[in-house]
Amino acid sequence: VRTARLEAFSDGVFAIAITLLALDLPRPEGPDLWRELGQAWESYAAFLVSFLTIGIIWLNHHALIDRIAAADRTLLFLNLMLLMWTSMIPWPTGLVADRLGHDGAEAAAVVYAVVFLAMAVTFRSIWLHAQRSGKLAALTPAQIAHLDRRNAVGLTSYAVAVALAFVVPAASLAVCFFVAAYFLLPDRAERLS
Amino acid sequence: VRTARLEAFSDGVFAIAITLLALDLPRPEGPDLWRELGQAWESYAAFLVSFLTIGIIWLNHHALIDRIAAADRTLLFLNLMLLMWTSMIPWPTGLVADRLGHDGAEAAAVVYAVVFLAMAVTFRSIWLHAQRSGKLAALTPAQIAHLDRRNAVGLTSYAVAVALAFVVPAASLAVCFFVAAYFLLPDRAERLS
Amino acid sequence: VRTARLEAFSDGVFAIAITLLALDLPRPEGPDLWRELGQAWESYAAFLVSFLTIGIIWLNHHALIDRIAAADRTLLFLNLMLLMWTSMIPWPTGLVADRLGHDGAEAAAVVYAVVFLAMAVTFRSIWLHAQRSGKLAALTPAQIAHLDRRNAVGLTSYAVAVALAFVVPAASLAVCFFVAAYFLLPDRAERLS
Amino acid sequence: VRTARLEAFSDGVFAIAITLLALDLPRPEGPDLWRELGQAWESYAAFLVSFLTIGIIWLNHHALIDRIAAADRTLLFLNLMLLMWTSMIPWPTGLVADRLGHDGAEAAAVVYAVVFLAMAVTFRSIWLHAQRSGKLAALTPAQIAHLDRRNAVGLTSYAVAVALAFVVPAASLAVCFFVAAYFLLPDRAERLS
Repeated sequence: VRTARLEAFSDGVFAIAITLLALDLPRPEGPDLWRELGQAWESYAAFLVSFLTIGIIWLNHHALIDRIAAADRTLLFLNLMLLMWTSMIPWPTGLVADRLGHDGAEAAAVVYAVVFLAMAVTFRSIWLHAQRSGKLAALTPAQIAHLDRRNAVGLTSYAVAVALAFVVPAASLAVCFFVAAYFLLPDRAERLS
Repeated sequence: VRTARLEAFSDGVFAIAITLLALDLPRPEGPDLWRELGQAWESYAAFLVSFLTIGIIWLNHHALIDRIAAADRTLLFLNLMLLMWTSMIPWPTGLVADRLGHDGAEAAAVVYAVVFLAMAVTFRSIWLHAQRSGKLAALTPAQIAHLDRRNAVGLTSYAVAVALAFVVPAASLAVCFFVAAYFLLPDRAERLS
Repeated sequence: VRTARLEAFSDGVFAIAITLLALDLPRPEGPDLWRELGQAWESYAAFLVSFLTIGIIWLNHHALIDRIAAADRTLLFLNLMLLMWTSMIPWPTGLVADRLGHDGAEAAAVVYAVVFLAMAVTFRSIWLHAQRSGKLAALTPAQIAHLDRRNAVGLTSYAVAVALAFVVPAASLAVCFFVAAYFLLPDRAERLS
Repeated sequence: VRTARLEAFSDGVFAIAITLLALDLPRPEGPDLWRELGQAWESYAAFLVSFLTIGIIWLNHHALIDRIAAADRTLLFLNLMLLMWTSMIPWPTGLVADRLGHDGAEAAAVVYAVVFLAMAVTFRSIWLHAQRSGKLAALTPAQIAHLDRRNAVGLTSYAVAVALAFVVPAASLAVCFFVAAYFLLPDRAERLS
């Protein structure tokens, strides 16, 4: 399988997952729509964090796969796992929208952060696999070290988010937001590629 | 990131958002289907306006991105914001279908027009960013002025639609319809490109 | 707009609409799942007819657009209308699944056939527009006449289906099925292209 | 129709079907979210098996279609059937998630395995059609025999899964899981291609 095909399929999944997020925005039935929409801030927050995160996954996925010439079975499998975790994101997003500030907020926030963490672990596995098989030759050691650090920041932050979710669910969501923001900021090494 | 990839991903989001609109068409449960379908004109109107608008976004997005050679971080971020507002469109479309002519019509129409306005503001930001970074060199100053005017018409109209939504929700929807119709009409400058 | 982009976007909408059809397959809640699934034949019939029809639209759309070099505003608008009718197909499919054999079967079948007829009328408009603007030069007059006849068969059949829906809803669905089957059969003229 | 277009459309359907699976992950409403999420293992199991299976369909579909130069009407029709069965997968996945361990588990598991079997039969038909029309010339007889054997393993396993579903629904799901795992493992013949 050429990676071009892999990218097209992955992009399809990312595009669908990111668009399905909006299906969970609040559609209250009560008489006072202003008030009900105004109180649904958990929905908007979860939507925003998930939207930015899937956007970042797309961006980073593209930057990584683009540097790999051909896909072996291991890469195909890891990539499928990455798509699985990403396609699941609308699910905990809905849980957080339902539960934040109510019963079960901790469980919802933990599932949310765990899905993000699992996605980041899978992403790191793809990165390590590509590195080990010498497929990232176009990068200098300095660039590899830089990207590696960036990658580790995401992973560590999501682990923190999981732990935090057990005690302060809303803070866990905030951590996930800052990870997305961090990856959206311009980055020296990527601009070189 | 080459803009070809950016376009493909954006097109995916546009195609999904435009197709999800139909999920909100009325599926009444009562005994008299004719009557119930006949009374759901708010659903059809909101569907039509949203469908044409996303169609226009696709068209104008393509026309713009096609003229840009490479995507920097700012463009990627602005484009992600454009996708966010566009992917949200099915949400206020459903609100308008639920509420027009009932309690909360104003709130629904305001959210609808605000999402369109936010989308138009983001679109203008992309346009200004592309212009400022000198990436639209293939256009003559006259063409740029022309497209700029067109762009401003959309923006102003959506601002009017937001204001109008507070008083006459249905009229706000009509304004959004006319914006879409305006952009669907053949346009000299674009035909030259 | 190059037609390649038009095709890619249209294909996206077709692929999504055809896949969304399965969301309406029956998911009964009662204790006897065998019996309930067995009684939902209207759902399966409507699903099958709609699936084949969208498949045919994709096939014929591709065959047509592929012969056109560049898209003018009229073609873009007509194509957007075709996408609109196609993206709506899951909606009357759900209505037919709900209503066939119950109250409102006529209304559901009429809406179903009307959406197909509107789609076919739009398709014919695209065909006539492409013909009139001399963009189908690669075809011989005999081929054009052949395709024209085929096109007319579809259109006439859907008109019959609309009329029939007012009296025998199930027969109207059968007519729509035969149109899809007719277009799925191998066709001399297309094979030449 | 060039097979490139066929692949793009099919990939779109696969990507959407695989992403829609997540829409059925549990979103319990009760007070104890931990417990309710913990008890929904049928949902996770069905999701996982379906996700891997659609991933495999994508992979194998690509490997097969890539070897075929042009699509005739028979291939187009068979491919449309394959897309139909694949797009249906979220439906029995939801049934299994609802019913496993409850009333109707057998019916749900039978429908699930039957959809997979029908998909595999259609896949085999495409394979036989491509072989018979001499379109797989790039493969050696040994490779063809190898792929043929692999193909038959899938088909037979799904037939077993259907039979098993009548007596031990959960075991049927396990068989479907092992088929996916079998196809995910590296395979000599495919690596040669």
